[in-house]
Amino acid sequence: MKRTLITNGTFITMDEQTPIVKGYMVVEGSRITYLGKEAPQPQEQFDEKIDGTGKLYMPGFVNTHGHAAMSLLRGYGDDMALQVWLQEKMWPMEGKFTSHDVRIGTMLSLLEMIKGGTTTFVDMYDHMNQVAEASVESGIRACLTRGVIGLCPREVQDAKLAEAIQFAKDWHGQADGRITAMMSPHGPYTCPPDYIERIVQAAHDLNLPMHTHMSETAREVQDNVDQYGLRPVAHLEKLGVFSRPTLVAHAVHLTDEEIAILKQYDVRVSHNPGSNLKLASGVARVPELLKAGVLVSLGTDGAASNNNLDMLEEIRLAALIHKGVTGDPVAVAAWDALKMGTLDGAKSIWLNDVGMLKAGMKADFIAMDMEQPHFYPRTNLISHVVYSASSRDVTDVCIDGRFVVRKGECLTMDEEKVKFEAQQCFERLTAG
Amino acid sequence: MKRTLITNGTFITMDEQTPIVKGYMVVEGSRITYLGKEAPQPQEQFDEKIDGTGKLYMPGFVNTHGHAAMSLLRGYGDDMALQVWLQEKMWPMEGKFTSHDVRIGTMLSLLEMIKGGTTTFVDMYDHMNQVAEASVESGIRACLTRGVIGLCPREVQDAKLAEAIQFAKDWHGQADGRITAMMSPHGPYTCPPDYIERIVQAAHDLNLPMHTHMSETAREVQDNVDQYGLRPVAHLEKLGVFSRPTLVAHAVHLTDEEIAILKQYDVRVSHNPGSNLKLASGVARVPELLKAGVLVSLGTDGAASNNNLDMLEEIRLAALIHKGVTGDPVAVAAWDALKMGTLDGAKSIWLNDVGMLKAGMKADFIAMDMEQPHFYPRTNLISHVVYSASSRDVTDVCIDGRFVVRKGECLTMDEEKVKFEAQQCFERLTAG
Repeated sequence: MKRTLITNGTFITMDEQTPIVKGYMVVEGSRITYLGKEAPQPQEQFDEKIDGTGKLYMPGFVNTHGHAAMSLLRGYGDDMALQVWLQEKMWPMEGKFTSHDVRIGTMLSLLEMIKGGTTTFVDMYDHMNQVAEASVESGIRACLTRGVIGLCPREVQDAKLAEAIQFAKDWHGQADGRITAMMSPHGPYTCPPDYIERIVQAAHDLNLPMHTHMSETAREVQDNVDQYGLRPVAHLEKLGVFSRPTLVAHAVHLTDEEIAILKQYDVRVSHNPGSNLKLASGVARVPELLKAGVLVSLGTDGAASNNNLDMLEEIRLAALIHKGVTGDPVAVAAWDALKMGTLDGAKSIWLNDVGMLKAGMKADFIAMDMEQPHFYPRTNLISHVVYSASSRDVTDVCIDGRFVVRKGECLTMDEEKVKFEAQQCFERLTAG
Repeated sequence: MKRTLITNGTFITMDEQTPIVKGYMVVEGSRITYLGKEAPQPQEQFDEKIDGTGKLYMPGFVNTHGHAAMSLLRGYGDDMALQVWLQEKMWPMEGKFTSHDVRIGTMLSLLEMIKGGTTTFVDMYDHMNQVAEASVESGIRACLTRGVIGLCPREVQDAKLAEAIQFAKDWHGQADGRITAMMSPHGPYTCPPDYIERIVQAAHDLNLPMHTHMSETAREVQDNVDQYGLRPVAHLEKLGVFSRPTLVAHAVHLTDEEIAILKQYDVRVSHNPGSNLKLASGVARVPELLKAGVLVSLGTDGAASNNNLDMLEEIRLAALIHKGVTGDPVAVAAWDALKMGTLDGAKSIWLNDVGMLKAGMKADFIAMDMEQPHFYPRTNLISHVVYSASSRDVTDVCIDGRFVVRKGECLTMDEEKVKFEAQQCFERLTAG
């Protein structure tokens, strides 16, 4: 088992007891076995020693909602009304996606995410075998789910559900546990109630959590009321979704009662501020969710509605927009935003040994170059990361004890090939 | 006169007639003399040829509001109520600033801004000779003003005004015209009316524009009403401020009538979205300002309230937040946000030959590395810059025909020295 020692490092641990440690970290195999001020003895026992001078180490980012393959549509349709964007731009193109497109689009996203410090991501899409295989190759940690849309004949519903079940059976726990699975009705507005109930049953049978879009737009909430007489939270509660551990994406439009229900069932919320702003969906009630004790994490959503997969940008948005919109300068503090993007992201997908630098935790961490001017003076490093830094400051990325990025270069993927193939896919998709 | 040819470049011109050009650009001395698809002949005439393959060229960013020296207080007091932040953190520290501190803090900001693609900046502060000297050294284009606070005895007011006048006389038009000056009452809430009138008179005498903070917070607007019976716009109008060409910073809290007055006097607004969000001041009515035809540009404000000086981040925020807050996905389009951060920034400070890549314009431009994954696929480059790119993608910066950054390295300033001295200043300021 490989033993690595990092010396002279500065570590943001995400452990509230010791948020910042200057000193040493030891990685053995896939786990951190030591973090502290004192050098471990004897130093000869290490296979590799890394000088951490000038580097800021912290847990990798956990991106809790996205559709990686949609990076093929980055910039293809911006600044338009949601329905026009969906109906004229996204859906026709996505309808043409082959499994090859999904593989290449996912690779492009993985490259961007990994280089930018994301060490775990959630993905809900189609052709999920391609997504899982690309994830394994890249070295990333992934929580994957075949999102099913149920607005189709019963036999198509059946086939999709069977596919989702098979995917979960095939992949949950694979790649030394780096891959986990969830079950996903795409959303209450795209799945009939009985179909959602069948998906919940499958999740019970497989003992897996649920992931779904929920209350992203005001219109969707109103449509739910018109169609079912209930707002989405009560609707999903009624269908038994929350009887499973659940992660919902967006949750922009919530009443106080709905927040209380989410808390009651320990439903986790993936807040996607960049996507919600860009699509003009609104600003989620994050301060109220936090106050109620709901576990909130951060997601980029797909690159077509963001338009990048930069978790540090989501962390910054989460720290900034709620202050500006509520008028409360302490609405979401830097530490809280950083926690949403790391430790709470991991907890949100039931990973209890990810998201913190501490002996016993998985070695999922990043190093940032602290020698950029925006890291000076050295007042408050947590503040610097949240309000000043760039994901391009990330120089090294380690996932499950394996370095996948060093000196800014991705070691697990051929960057030139991925970009070239992504461009080819896009040109083929738009050619006809 | 040096003649430089860029070949194989992709240029975002900010010229609506030809927004994107693939081809060649010629720089002679401080100006662009050619931009077009065809190669200029004969190519032997050039002193330097630059291969622009894989580079995206565009006008440099114009940062229309800030306080560069405040970078010394970056991260020193975040996530606190505005009054606590000002009274307990900012003012006591700023009160200790020596001219050396202002020089070093400004250098740190210039380093960050220039490396991040800002080619022109506005600065309102004290010890402005230091700011002007640092600006000249760095090679940046600057519009500078000694901001005066008038809550002091008459003789101190007199001294400050005399200093502001002398600064403008000494520096306006210096460094081959790279330095221009304005006259600045700090704000209506920090200057008695008669003092503002004297500053306006000085601006008339010097034939210079005005710059001031205005309507940043709801409280400030209410205080103005309580004290003077007028909201800030009418108050400044009454005092004759708008009889001079004027740039106001923030303008978050405006009525329709106030927007109409700003339009009537062609007052320019520096929108500072990052600072306004972080200090919980609110969200400016930018879509309404644009609809009314008011010239809106972008500013970072000081690094203590942002906490970086990243104009691309302000451009992105301007494009995103107004969509999310108004619910209109076309509220501020990518092109409009980019224009605010470049061409309209230049116009806002009365620079009519800056902010566009076109023959005859000043050679103030940047190059970005388009080979990052977030620039793929090549769908819409303007969208990619606004929604996907990072200021860390900036590789080269040319100001007034002179390259000040090449391959990410600043050529005009000693980066290590600046960072070291900034750290020393901060430690001395906080030591006692």
